[in-house]
Amino acid sequence: MTIGVFDSGVGGLTVLNELLRLVPHADYLYFGDTARLPYGSKSAETVARYAISSARLLQERGATLMVIACNTATALAMPQIEKSLSVPALGVIAPGAQRVAAISRSKSAVVIGTEGTVASGAYPRALAAYGISATQKACPLFVPLVEEGWTDHSVTEEVARIYLSELFSRTGNADRRPPSKSAAASDSQPDVLLLGCTHYPLLKPLLRRLVPAQVSIVDSAESTAQKVAEIVSAMQKENPSTPVRPSASAAASASSIQFFVTDSVEKFQRLGQRFFSRKIENVSHLDLET
Amino acid sequence: MTIGVFDSGVGGLTVLNELLRLVPHADYLYFGDTARLPYGSKSAETVARYAISSARLLQERGATLMVIACNTATALAMPQIEKSLSVPALGVIAPGAQRVAAISRSKSAVVIGTEGTVASGAYPRALAAYGISATQKACPLFVPLVEEGWTDHSVTEEVARIYLSELFSRTGNADRRPPSKSAAASDSQPDVLLLGCTHYPLLKPLLRRLVPAQVSIVDSAESTAQKVAEIVSAMQKENPSTPVRPSASAAASASSIQFFVTDSVEKFQRLGQRFFSRKIENVSHLDLET
Repeated sequence: MTIGVFDSGVGGLTVLNELLRLVPHADYLYFGDTARLPYGSKSAETVARYAISSARLLQERGATLMVIACNTATALAMPQIEKSLSVPALGVIAPGAQRVAAISRSKSAVVIGTEGTVASGAYPRALAAYGISATQKACPLFVPLVEEGWTDHSVTEEVARIYLSELFSRTGNADRRPPSKSAAASDSQPDVLLLGCTHYPLLKPLLRRLVPAQVSIVDSAESTAQKVAEIVSAMQKENPSTPVRPSASAAASASSIQFFVTDSVEKFQRLGQRFFSRKIENVSHLDLET
Repeated sequence: MTIGVFDSGVGGLTVLNELLRLVPHADYLYFGDTARLPYGSKSAETVARYAISSARLLQERGATLMVIACNTATALAMPQIEKSLSVPALGVIAPGAQRVAAISRSKSAVVIGTEGTVASGAYPRALAAYGISATQKACPLFVPLVEEGWTDHSVTEEVARIYLSELFSRTGNADRRPPSKSAAASDSQPDVLLLGCTHYPLLKPLLRRLVPAQVSIVDSAESTAQKVAEIVSAMQKENPSTPVRPSASAAASASSIQFFVTDSVEKFQRLGQRFFSRKIENVSHLDLET
């Protein structure tokens, strides 16, 4: 089985990390549309056009299951992407929302993401289907801060504190105090922070320090990989003769991973290495516009 | 005369501001390649391809003089852009370097810009021609901070302090103290900070507070507009019958300004308004890829 993973850049590598952990014997094709990133600040029409051309390319190269590992593309263009492909596709929003639904007791969550993801309202819509109300906040500085490598920097902590300040009434140092009975019983307090951008998992330790202790952090990269693992497992149960890899003898070997990028290969390797748990090799440059 | 102004997004509006001040009776076509921004983190090949298609479009629409109001495009692709056009083109780097040469006494300058501009080495090369040595620093967080509207924010000040910390030996509060005789006499201290990105003029008041008092800040947006004014004036002296505007009766009226963008018109107007001194009207969407 070949899983195509698509993102606007390096953020989707956090999804690929989780996929390699949970679905270790599949082969992977990763596409980073680095010449046209970031998608986060662009309009729905532009993002849809870019995402469709990118996803089709992975399908042409042999992907039999597509993971849209980009929150903005999922939020703004998932129906169009699915329509343009002949293989099944999974976005990051539905699995993230499902995970929130499974763990939220107060039925109230905070969603942070790019400007495009937030403006789309995709997460609040997905969460509303589970009876969960969502407060959203666009955090446009998080992606450049992560790409600068300042994942545990005092500046990033200050930016996060500003972005999160109105979202949790007890954001800050108050998380060291045990929650009072009345606060714990209140249903209006959000008890989940959903990371609605694949760059944000790198900020998890920093965000953990800032949000109240009773708030769980849900990472849509991880939730998506879990969903893919379930799908692959279901496919195998349904048709036990379908191996994850074509040759049974290869089942014990490591996945093959091929990367495609639209901008510089060297830049992708350099920046991507901050996001990816293995060495980034086998990167090819592709030009989508010729 | 119709002047075409090209940038990857809204930053070139700082150049257009200065042009409207210094060459008020020309007509203007502004092109913001907002669907493909930012150029700052992309490779030379990609930037050249994008910039050429954008500049050609302005020429087709009637521009008779082209201003490449984007430091990254100028740094990475100026010769290719000039070759692809039949009208004269002016980038932002040569005028910025020329202005530094005119005012630096220590013959040492600091250049700040995007990753792409810095990596190209275009400013140090241009400055070396005037016998000026340059220290460079990429400041990738400045553009997103400006676009977030945090032009006078404590976070931006902290980021600037970090970026500039090693560039001026007396960066910080020390600029309040009168320079010692030995420091003032030293030729090795940079005495100019060149803003090598069209977003940075919005940070000028903040940067002014951080760099030593004896350091001048050169803004390539302003230097470029001055150069354009000189060119236009020379063209008129050479051929006095060539009016800036086709009809003499229109000479006293305001410039006409038309904007073209590749992403959302509404987003360009909203973000651009922070950069532009007049109301942004007459914006059309163009799709370069179809």
